[in-house]
Amino acid sequence: MQKLVIIGGGNVAQHLAQAFHESADVKLVQVFTRSQPAKGSFPIGVDLIQDYEKMAEADLYLVAVSDNAISDVYASLPFEGRLVAHTSGMSSLVRNGRNRGAVFYPLQTFTKGKEIDLSNIPICIEAEDNADLQLLERIAGSLSQHVVRITSEQRKALHVAAVFANNFVNHLYLLGNRICTENGLPFGILKPLIDETANKVMQMNPADAQTGPAKRNDSSTINAHLDFLSDDRMKEIYSLLTQSIQDHVQKL
Amino acid sequence: MQKLVIIGGGNVAQHLAQAFHESADVKLVQVFTRSQPAKGSFPIGVDLIQDYEKMAEADLYLVAVSDNAISDVYASLPFEGRLVAHTSGMSSLVRNGRNRGAVFYPLQTFTKGKEIDLSNIPICIEAEDNADLQLLERIAGSLSQHVVRITSEQRKALHVAAVFANNFVNHLYLLGNRICTENGLPFGILKPLIDETANKVMQMNPADAQTGPAKRNDSSTINAHLDFLSDDRMKEIYSLLTQSIQDHVQKL
Repeated sequence: MQKLVIIGGGNVAQHLAQAFHESADVKLVQVFTRSQPAKGSFPIGVDLIQDYEKMAEADLYLVAVSDNAISDVYASLPFEGRLVAHTSGMSSLVRNGRNRGAVFYPLQTFTKGKEIDLSNIPICIEAEDNADLQLLERIAGSLSQHVVRITSEQRKALHVAAVFANNFVNHLYLLGNRICTENGLPFGILKPLIDETANKVMQMNPADAQTGPAKRNDSSTINAHLDFLSDDRMKEIYSLLTQSIQDHVQKL
Repeated sequence: MQKLVIIGGGNVAQHLAQAFHESADVKLVQVFTRSQPAKGSFPIGVDLIQDYEKMAEADLYLVAVSDNAISDVYASLPFEGRLVAHTSGMSSLVRNGRNRGAVFYPLQTFTKGKEIDLSNIPICIEAEDNADLQLLERIAGSLSQHVVRITSEQRKALHVAAVFANNFVNHLYLLGNRICTENGLPFGILKPLIDETANKVMQMNPADAQTGPAKRNDSSTINAHLDFLSDDRMKEIYSLLTQSIQDHVQKL
């Protein structure tokens, strides 16, 4: 059984710790956090440490900390030659020559307190050699059926794509919510539409799923919508995304 | 049992005809289309007509045509004093004084060939008097458990909100897809993230669900993403939506 140490106390670390704790194939031997974590952050029975010197031996050290903290963690590890992977979309593979560098990047949005089924979540891996890749594959494979080897450049692309498909999409939900509440309508009224919009692209290409006034070049509706919006930033977003939809329709 | 005539041959007309055809409480007596519809567009057994003079008597005439065709249809109806509802988000309630005006606006995205369960879809209704509202409520209620009375101004707001939550969201999926395919990655890798992003706001407020570099004001990641994007329009969208997320974070 592979032995694993997780380093980090945030959302990603907590979700991964929970998932590995439940895994039959990997033994989560320790979780290292800078300070004592809040009660309930990690599964009961997991060895929680705050001292690098107490770090146990393991097949993989998974560094799930914010990008700007990765270097400090790597420099503080009290050993050499072991396999150390971070979970970042943007950071480079090798962060410190003392250990073997790797990446273990789960492509998902982790929210405090919201459980996620990791079994279908893409886990993107990278390592310096084939033996390490195979080890990562086995460990990631204990959580997900969807483990993919990708390059650093592809990982960067995915990270940017995820900002569009998650961060920006969620912000559009927020703007939709704002328009509703400013007009005395509950956000709930938009939920079946949000659900179906996501559903549609599970089965068809987003280009084929596109509908609406921008797609059909319906300038009277577009102008009526711009008139309706009183907020300048929202007008700007409306115009820019309408323009971008029209650019893409013309390209088809 | 209420009698219904549907006027229109497009997606909305086809989806509504299918749903009413299966309804036990409403009798779909006719569908009027301008020209002979393609085979399979409407359920077998429905009386399809192309001649206004052959239009049957009904409790409700549902005009599911594009916004700029509504006036022509209303002017062509060969009767007076009956209840005529359109399905448009933006058009005014009364379109022609000869009949009783109403609105029957289902808030959903209808795609050719993709079946939709209407039972949870909000159907927004409006009419000139209470008796008509109650009639609309009964008829809409035969399809959906989610029938709401809203004003014309609220309907306009919903139509704009739906552009953000559906049309623009779908376009962001398309941009995410483009980034993936340009980097040799299948769109499928984004699907669990898209699914979870929509899922999250079923349970929590979009403001609470927001994550990412814009939210945490991580300018080094934001700059790395802007460097990565080579397309000017995508850079523009990235900057504007990042700015808008930051505006809203500051307001919280």
